[in-house]
Amino acid sequence: MFACAEVGRTVDKKEYNRRLPKLREELLEVQGLLRESDFPVIVIFGGVDGGGKGESANYLSEWMDAHWLRTVAYDPPTTEEKERPRFWRYWRDLPPRGQIGIFLSSWYHSPLLNRVHGKSKLKAFQHSLREIRSFERTLADDGALIIKFWMHLGKDAQKKRFLDMENDPLLHWRVTERDWEHWRMYDQFVSVSETLIQETDLPEAPWKIIEGADPHFYGLEVGETILKRIRQHLKKSQELAKKRKKEPVKPGTRLSKKNALKGIDLEKSLEKKPYQLELERWQGRLNLLHRQAREKGIPMVLAFEGWDAGGKGGAIRRITAALDSRSYKVFPISAPTQEELAQHYLWRFWKQLPRAGKISIFDRSWYGRVLVERIEGFATAEEWKRAYQEICDFEGELVGHGTAVAKFWLHISKDEQKRRFEARQQVPYKRWKLTEEDWRNRDRWEEYEDAINDMIELTHTQDAPWVVVEGNNKRFARIKVLQEVCKALDRALHQHATCHG
Amino acid sequence: MFACAEVGRTVDKKEYNRRLPKLREELLEVQGLLRESDFPVIVIFGGVDGGGKGESANYLSEWMDAHWLRTVAYDPPTTEEKERPRFWRYWRDLPPRGQIGIFLSSWYHSPLLNRVHGKSKLKAFQHSLREIRSFERTLADDGALIIKFWMHLGKDAQKKRFLDMENDPLLHWRVTERDWEHWRMYDQFVSVSETLIQETDLPEAPWKIIEGADPHFYGLEVGETILKRIRQHLKKSQELAKKRKKEPVKPGTRLSKKNALKGIDLEKSLEKKPYQLELERWQGRLNLLHRQAREKGIPMVLAFEGWDAGGKGGAIRRITAALDSRSYKVFPISAPTQEELAQHYLWRFWKQLPRAGKISIFDRSWYGRVLVERIEGFATAEEWKRAYQEICDFEGELVGHGTAVAKFWLHISKDEQKRRFEARQQVPYKRWKLTEEDWRNRDRWEEYEDAINDMIELTHTQDAPWVVVEGNNKRFARIKVLQEVCKALDRALHQHATCHG
Repeated sequence: MFACAEVGRTVDKKEYNRRLPKLREELLEVQGLLRESDFPVIVIFGGVDGGGKGESANYLSEWMDAHWLRTVAYDPPTTEEKERPRFWRYWRDLPPRGQIGIFLSSWYHSPLLNRVHGKSKLKAFQHSLREIRSFERTLADDGALIIKFWMHLGKDAQKKRFLDMENDPLLHWRVTERDWEHWRMYDQFVSVSETLIQETDLPEAPWKIIEGADPHFYGLEVGETILKRIRQHLKKSQELAKKRKKEPVKPGTRLSKKNALKGIDLEKSLEKKPYQLELERWQGRLNLLHRQAREKGIPMVLAFEGWDAGGKGGAIRRITAALDSRSYKVFPISAPTQEELAQHYLWRFWKQLPRAGKISIFDRSWYGRVLVERIEGFATAEEWKRAYQEICDFEGELVGHGTAVAKFWLHISKDEQKRRFEARQQVPYKRWKLTEEDWRNRDRWEEYEDAINDMIELTHTQDAPWVVVEGNNKRFARIKVLQEVCKALDRALHQHATCHG
Repeated sequence: MFACAEVGRTVDKKEYNRRLPKLREELLEVQGLLRESDFPVIVIFGGVDGGGKGESANYLSEWMDAHWLRTVAYDPPTTEEKERPRFWRYWRDLPPRGQIGIFLSSWYHSPLLNRVHGKSKLKAFQHSLREIRSFERTLADDGALIIKFWMHLGKDAQKKRFLDMENDPLLHWRVTERDWEHWRMYDQFVSVSETLIQETDLPEAPWKIIEGADPHFYGLEVGETILKRIRQHLKKSQELAKKRKKEPVKPGTRLSKKNALKGIDLEKSLEKKPYQLELERWQGRLNLLHRQAREKGIPMVLAFEGWDAGGKGGAIRRITAALDSRSYKVFPISAPTQEELAQHYLWRFWKQLPRAGKISIFDRSWYGRVLVERIEGFATAEEWKRAYQEICDFEGELVGHGTAVAKFWLHISKDEQKRRFEARQQVPYKRWKLTEEDWRNRDRWEEYEDAINDMIELTHTQDAPWVVVEGNNKRFARIKVLQEVCKALDRALHQHATCHG
C-alpha cells in the first residue's frame, strides 16, 4: 500500500518557488468562495512520526487566511472529556460551515496506537473503526468535505529524518524517546495502518497517501489536493442546492407500518389522593436511584417530545423537584441560533451531554429533525429519512458510553389538546405559551401522526426505548414518566454492575 | 442585620393565589421586553441552607419562559476549571443580553464556606470579596442588571425547617449530615455572612435579605423584586441609549502624558546571517522554557497588537515553530460574532484562556476596545475610558493565577507601512491581506498614535508589561519577540518557584 510513497519524490527549490505563489493565490480564492458556501472542510493528518503532519498544518495556516481556519491537536483526554462519549471532544471542535478545521492526532490517533501497542484487541479496534466510519459519514452526509492525508515515510527514511532532526540544534527537541520506540515498532505500525486505511477509506472520505520526506514535495501536494477537492465540492454543492430548490416541500408518506399511537388508552387516569402518594413514592425512589448513579458516575439523558400542550414542562418539573439542583440541567430547545445553524443539527445536542453522574433533560430534542423539520420542509426528504439512522447511532454512542437514556412521547387526544389550548387562553400568564404556530401544527395533526409513528418505530431500541405516555390525565402521565425514568436508571445501574463487576 | 428577616413573615394561601397570577403575567411581560433590550439579568441566591434558594430558582423557572432563563449551580471545580483563574467558570456561564441567568452556589459560595470553616484567613477572605466586587462592577458597568438575594432563616427556624424536611418522606433526603454540621456553626456562619454582605453590597449590585421560612412569602417577594428591578433597569437603559445617540463619535483626546512611542529607534536591524543564529538560539531556548512551564503547569497568554502590516503574523509563526502543536492555540481576532456581541467584550477572551501548561496566542486582542473601538466610535468614551482599568483587572487575574503574560506592540514607521502595503499589492497571494480598511486606518495614524500611547501608559504593569517592538526590520522584530516571550516564561517560572518552594 505504501510502496508508492517510498520512491523519494522531491520538488526542487526553483520549481517550488515557481508553483507556490500561484497555489497560495488560488487557495485564498477558494477559501473566499468557501466562506460563502454551506459546508465545512475537515482536514485530517495521519501517518508516521516525522512525516510532516505538523509542518503541513503550519503551511496551510501560513498560506490561507487564519481567521477561517483552525488547527486542533489533542492531548490525552481530560476528566471532562473522559466523562463523555469518545467523540464529544471532536464534535466540540468541528469547524462551522464555510470554514476549515485541521485535525492533528485526530480520532484515528488512539485506535491506531492502542492497536500497535497491543492495548486493544482486534475486535475493539474494528469497533472503533466502525465508529469512525459512522462519524465521518454523518458529517459527509450533512455536506462536510473531508480530506484525509496519510503522511508516510519508509523505515529508513524515518530513521534518517530522526537523525537529521537530532543533529539540528533547532529541531532536536522534536525527537523523543517515544519516537524511537515507535520506530522500532515500525513494521507493526505499518501493518495496523494498512488495515486502518483500508477500513476507513470511504468514498465520501478517502485517504490520500503522501510521501512525507521532502517538505517542498508534500507541501505542494497537500495544498494542491485541498485546492482541487474544495473546488470539486463547491461545484457539487451548488448543483445539489439547485436540485433542492426544485424539490417540493412535503412531509412525505409513512415509512413504517406499525402504528405505535394506535393502541394507546388515553383514558388512563389517577385520582388526586393516590397521585400524591405515588408522587412521593416515585420521587423518593428517583432520588435514591440517582444518588446511586451519581456514585457510579453514570450520566443520564432524557428527551421529551409530545403534542403541544402535552404536559412536557409539568412532567419535567416533577423530575427536577426530586433532584439536587447541581445534578441536572434542563435545555428547552427552540429554533437554532446562527452559531448552531452553522453546524450539523446534532452538534448542539452533543455539546450539552452530561458529565458523569449528571442529567441533561431536553425539552424537545434532536427528534425535531423528523418531526417539525420534516413536516415544515426545513429538512429535505433525504435529510429527514437519513436522520433515523443518525439518531440511532447518536443514542448508541450514549448508551455505549454507559449513559442512561430515556425518551418520552407525551400523547394526548386532539380534543384534549383543544381543551388545553382554550384553557390557556383563559389564564393571562399562560396565554403566551399558546402561539399561532400551535394552531398551525394542530391543523397538520394527521401528518404529525405519521411522523410520530415513523419516529417511534424507526428509533425504538432496547437501550433507548420510546415511552409513549398516556397524557390526557396529567397526574397519570407524570407518575408514568417518573416510573420510566427510574426504570432507565435501574437499567443503567444494572448494566454498570455487570460491566464493572 | 438579619433581625428583620426573623420576624416570621408569611403570606396565606388565599393571598398567594390572589397575587400570583398577576405576578406571573407581569414577569412574562417584562421578560418579553427584556428580550428586546441590550442587557443581561444576573440573579444570585445566597444564604442559609434550607432558606429557599433552590425553591426560589424553581419558582422562577416555572413562572417565566424557560427558553430565555437558565439556572446554574456549581460543584467543586473540575480539573479544567481549576487550571484557569477562579472566575473562568462563571464567565462561561454568563447569560447573553436579553436573557436571565440564575446562579445558585455562585462565586460567593466558596469564599463564605472557606472562611466559616477557618480554611481561609481574613486577608484571603477580604481579597476574594474584592475580586467579587471587581467582577460584578465590570458586569454592571457593561449594563448587566445584578439582583442578589440573601435567603435567611433564624437559628431556630432553620432547625425547624430541617426537622420538618426530615419528617417529610419526599424531602428527607435533602437534609444531610453536612446541613446539621452547618447548623451547629450557625453563629459563625451568620457572622461571616454579615461581613460578606456588607462588603459586597454595591450600589450597582445590592443585596436584598429575604426571610426564607414561608415559601409563599419568599416566592412572591423574590418574584416581585425581580419584576421591579427589571422594570427600573429597562427604563434606565432606554434613557442611556437615548443619551448615547446624541453623543458625538470622536476618538477623544490623550489621557496620558508620556509618549511611549517616541523614543523608539525603528532603525534597529539584524543581518540575515546573525538572524539565523539568533533564531535558532531563541527558538531552542523557548522550547526548553516551555517544556519547563508545561511541567509546572504554568499557562501563558500572548497578545499581539501592532500597526497593519506590522509583522504580527510572521512573529507569531516564529514562536509556534518552536512549539509542539498540542501546546498552543492561535486566535486571530476579527469582528465579534452575534454570540460574542451578546456578551461583555472580555467574554470571548475569557473563554479562550489556556489550561495549565498551554499557550493562547491572540493575534489582536482585548486591546481592540481602546484602539479600533475608540477610534471608530464603536465604544462610547465612557466605555473605552473604563476599559483600561477593566483590562488591568483582567490581566491581574491571569497573573494572580500564575499565568505568564506578554503583550507586544509591533511598531513600524508610516513610511515602512506604505512600503509594505505597496509590496503586498504586488504579490497576488498577499493582496487579500490589504483592505480598504487598512488605508482608512492609515489616514487616522495620528489618532491611533494617541490611542496607542494611552494604551501603553495606562495598561503597562510589572507582571504584564508592554513590549514595544522596533519593527521596521522584520528580522530584528522577530528575535526581540522571541526573547521577550522567553523573558515572560522565565519570570513566571521564577515566581512559581518562589510560591511553591
